[in-house]
Amino acid sequence: MASLSVAEVAAACGGRVVGDGDRRLVGVRSLEGAGADMLSFVSEEPALPRAAVSAAGAFLARSASALLGRTVIEVLDPSAALILVLRLFHPARIPRPGIHVTAVVDAGTFVDPSAEIGPYAVVGDLSRVEANAIVGAHTVIGARCRVGAGSWLHPHVVLYDDVVLGERVEIHSGAVLGGDGFGYATTEKGLVKIPQVGGVTIGDDVEIGANTCIDRAALETTSVGAGTKIDDLVMLGHNVRLGRHDVLCAQVGIAGSAVIGDGVVLGGQVGVAGHITVGNGVKVQAQSGIGADVPDGEALHGTPAFAYRAYQKSHIEFRRLPETARLVRRLAEKAGLLKGAGE
Amino acid sequence: MASLSVAEVAAACGGRVVGDGDRRLVGVRSLEGAGADMLSFVSEEPALPRAAVSAAGAFLARSASALLGRTVIEVLDPSAALILVLRLFHPARIPRPGIHVTAVVDAGTFVDPSAEIGPYAVVGDLSRVEANAIVGAHTVIGARCRVGAGSWLHPHVVLYDDVVLGERVEIHSGAVLGGDGFGYATTEKGLVKIPQVGGVTIGDDVEIGANTCIDRAALETTSVGAGTKIDDLVMLGHNVRLGRHDVLCAQVGIAGSAVIGDGVVLGGQVGVAGHITVGNGVKVQAQSGIGADVPDGEALHGTPAFAYRAYQKSHIEFRRLPETARLVRRLAEKAGLLKGAGE
Amino acid sequence: MASLSVAEVAAACGGRVVGDGDRRLVGVRSLEGAGADMLSFVSEEPALPRAAVSAAGAFLARSASALLGRTVIEVLDPSAALILVLRLFHPARIPRPGIHVTAVVDAGTFVDPSAEIGPYAVVGDLSRVEANAIVGAHTVIGARCRVGAGSWLHPHVVLYDDVVLGERVEIHSGAVLGGDGFGYATTEKGLVKIPQVGGVTIGDDVEIGANTCIDRAALETTSVGAGTKIDDLVMLGHNVRLGRHDVLCAQVGIAGSAVIGDGVVLGGQVGVAGHITVGNGVKVQAQSGIGADVPDGEALHGTPAFAYRAYQKSHIEFRRLPETARLVRRLAEKAGLLKGAGE
Repeated sequence: MASLSVAEVAAACGGRVVGDGDRRLVGVRSLEGAGADMLSFVSEEPALPRAAVSAAGAFLARSASALLGRTVIEVLDPSAALILVLRLFHPARIPRPGIHVTAVVDAGTFVDPSAEIGPYAVVGDLSRVEANAIVGAHTVIGARCRVGAGSWLHPHVVLYDDVVLGERVEIHSGAVLGGDGFGYATTEKGLVKIPQVGGVTIGDDVEIGANTCIDRAALETTSVGAGTKIDDLVMLGHNVRLGRHDVLCAQVGIAGSAVIGDGVVLGGQVGVAGHITVGNGVKVQAQSGIGADVPDGEALHGTPAFAYRAYQKSHIEFRRLPETARLVRRLAEKAGLLKGAGE
Repeated sequence: MASLSVAEVAAACGGRVVGDGDRRLVGVRSLEGAGADMLSFVSEEPALPRAAVSAAGAFLARSASALLGRTVIEVLDPSAALILVLRLFHPARIPRPGIHVTAVVDAGTFVDPSAEIGPYAVVGDLSRVEANAIVGAHTVIGARCRVGAGSWLHPHVVLYDDVVLGERVEIHSGAVLGGDGFGYATTEKGLVKIPQVGGVTIGDDVEIGANTCIDRAALETTSVGAGTKIDDLVMLGHNVRLGRHDVLCAQVGIAGSAVIGDGVVLGGQVGVAGHITVGNGVKVQAQSGIGADVPDGEALHGTPAFAYRAYQKSHIEFRRLPETARLVRRLAEKAGLLKGAGE
Repeated sequence: MASLSVAEVAAACGGRVVGDGDRRLVGVRSLEGAGADMLSFVSEEPALPRAAVSAAGAFLARSASALLGRTVIEVLDPSAALILVLRLFHPARIPRPGIHVTAVVDAGTFVDPSAEIGPYAVVGDLSRVEANAIVGAHTVIGARCRVGAGSWLHPHVVLYDDVVLGERVEIHSGAVLGGDGFGYATTEKGLVKIPQVGGVTIGDDVEIGANTCIDRAALETTSVGAGTKIDDLVMLGHNVRLGRHDVLCAQVGIAGSAVIGDGVVLGGQVGVAGHITVGNGVKVQAQSGIGADVPDGEALHGTPAFAYRAYQKSHIEFRRLPETARLVRRLAEKAGLLKGAGE
């Protein structure tokens, strides 16, 4: 690992050195994990006592005043500075231009000369891999796809036909985009598949987690808005439309044709029913189930979900319910509405 | 995209043209998405007002009478006709016979000459790939497997050893069939793996979604009945037996040795406990948990699940529970059963 | 399948033959599935009536006394003996030493001569594959990884950079270890990714199911303790620390930075919130949600989860809640607290 001076790190993140600018640093760790050759950070005031006992060689912090005698890089926004410093020690992966000799690239495919196609990748007819994109080892791309400039498909991603990615899209291993939607007609001979002939469209700056599945639309396109972040093992059914800057935690499932607004946050394992609309800025607690339209700005919990605070109150009473019910039966007995069924 | 006349489309689905049979169509879209060169469809009467304002060039519908002045292909069953028409514009993928030069096929493997083995596929010893089957790029098939006639394994499917597929089975990317069941013996040294030496058997006309996992049996076989449809990210534990014509929505999990009847519908994220029996025709709401045997024909909701309608009623009261409990405490106080603990 | 005599099977598991030691056996099946050339087993007394009517040729059992006239291999612990016998009929897969001609192995990689690297595997720079390890077909391993001695990666596993596996680790197909954690800073331009530069560390004797995802840490390492068993489609967020000998059933999700003790059992689809601590020996019912710290030894159910028995009681009252609430309203009406709103 390369070593950098505190002064060099400060320069990279626009910070001001208080203390020893010549101290050498080899990386970044948490307050508990950092040693004398490591930088750590204090994002918020409550972390200061942990910083005081940290062995870190230097800190990113808003102010050095609470860390007397320590080397501090003062910055206005430690979180933003942390990103810059991490990139300094761990530069972003850049493409190694060219098509690996083992890759199978269709004659009708466009691959920008600056793009990288990894070992055993397969790219189908009429697809485009734009400038500085990376297609990882073993990734399979169907026909008529587009991998936008600066996008990065990790190893073992699958794009079926007609999947269009914006710029700077990052997709993790095992994700499958464009698999058939789950649509069947009920007939006398059982379920008959409705051909799923639509596509998938992913906006700029979207990140998609490992083993996540985004099904193709029946006719039009399943879409994810720009800036949206999707964690691992998430499922988007056919014709789902996600907004911009949404956050979908791991194992969320959204059924077909649901429409999700902008700035929505869905906790882990949340389920959303098909054909409903979730408004902008909605926040949903983990494991909740959304079964009906939700207006903008709501905070929800439970299955079926309702207002977060009301759910908390109901759940407190749910825990007391055996006691409450016993009381009801005693009262009813006393009032002659129940005959000795008190317990 | 090929263009077809309304009359040609009508002929393909046994429909009757009302209006302009020479109009050219290039595809099918929803009522909202269709333009003048597109066909759309009215499956049910409530969609008629949306059809009236649709820009579609023509419609599939039961009757033209409510669409005066528009070009309509009258059919008895618009859903069934839609499938035929979609197949007209988007013919089913047919195998490109032969084994790709990069595929690794064991000497003891049978591959029908009409079957297609894609780039980088690996097929193990004593396995059979029957007529017109497609084995997608990067798909790995173990030993002693069978891929039935007309089956289609998309890229990146994995079959461990001893996985037997019926005819016309479709498996989407990332699905893993035959992974070891989750079985351990508790010993003084910790958990010791019980070898999982059974197999997996999949009936005819089954479809299996992306990244779904079906574990091999401990001794016998995990099985899925004919015509059953399984969505993405579903988990079937070892020794599970699914019936025929079941529908398992995304992210369902069924624990080991559960037996599921025919015509069962499990909503998204439903969990089923191990070693229980779920009867024929049972319907389970999304996110529910089935912890005990279920008789035929039940409709269930909740965790642990009970009758759907009863659950709805209990949930309504759950929302009102803080208010109800407050009332109980006031009553109890009034009756001298509680001392001033009213709120 | 090889055939073995009852006496040979008994010798392999330290058992005593009662009956016909020369009888030939070709495998092991359940009591219902076994034929005359098959061994079955009676792990616990309640299974004896099913054994009495089984067609099995011989049994593993604690005692022959309840199986008069049948051939029995008497053993002290039938479950432990079963494992030995299964390994006799189905020997553990041993590595076929060498690197497949199609594998892409970086020049800076160490591969022990006894290890097996399968077709189309890719192994990155500075990684180590230790003695007797198996790297399955299509498995992709990044840079600076270690695959410990005797470990087995099935086909289509992905290890990103900096993933370190102990000895005898088994990882099933489609699992992804080291994908980026889900961490973003909120800025005026939307969410900005926090580089995830930590690693993943897996202890000895861990098994990881198909399509499971274990994300790399932000800075340090996501870790799984020795002897822990993880089923399919499980999600571990960044910086999670799992203890030793834990059991995580399918589709469990654990959010970032949660710390799980030793000997913990999480039922299927359980969710655990981030940044909390779950004590040793905690058992959690399927589908529950853990939202706060849990002391050692608790048994929990529900979302948010609380004590298992208390949850059972609350749930019983939840089912009766419409009736109870009706009673409350009648009482309130009678007491003049409600005006005729009884139903």
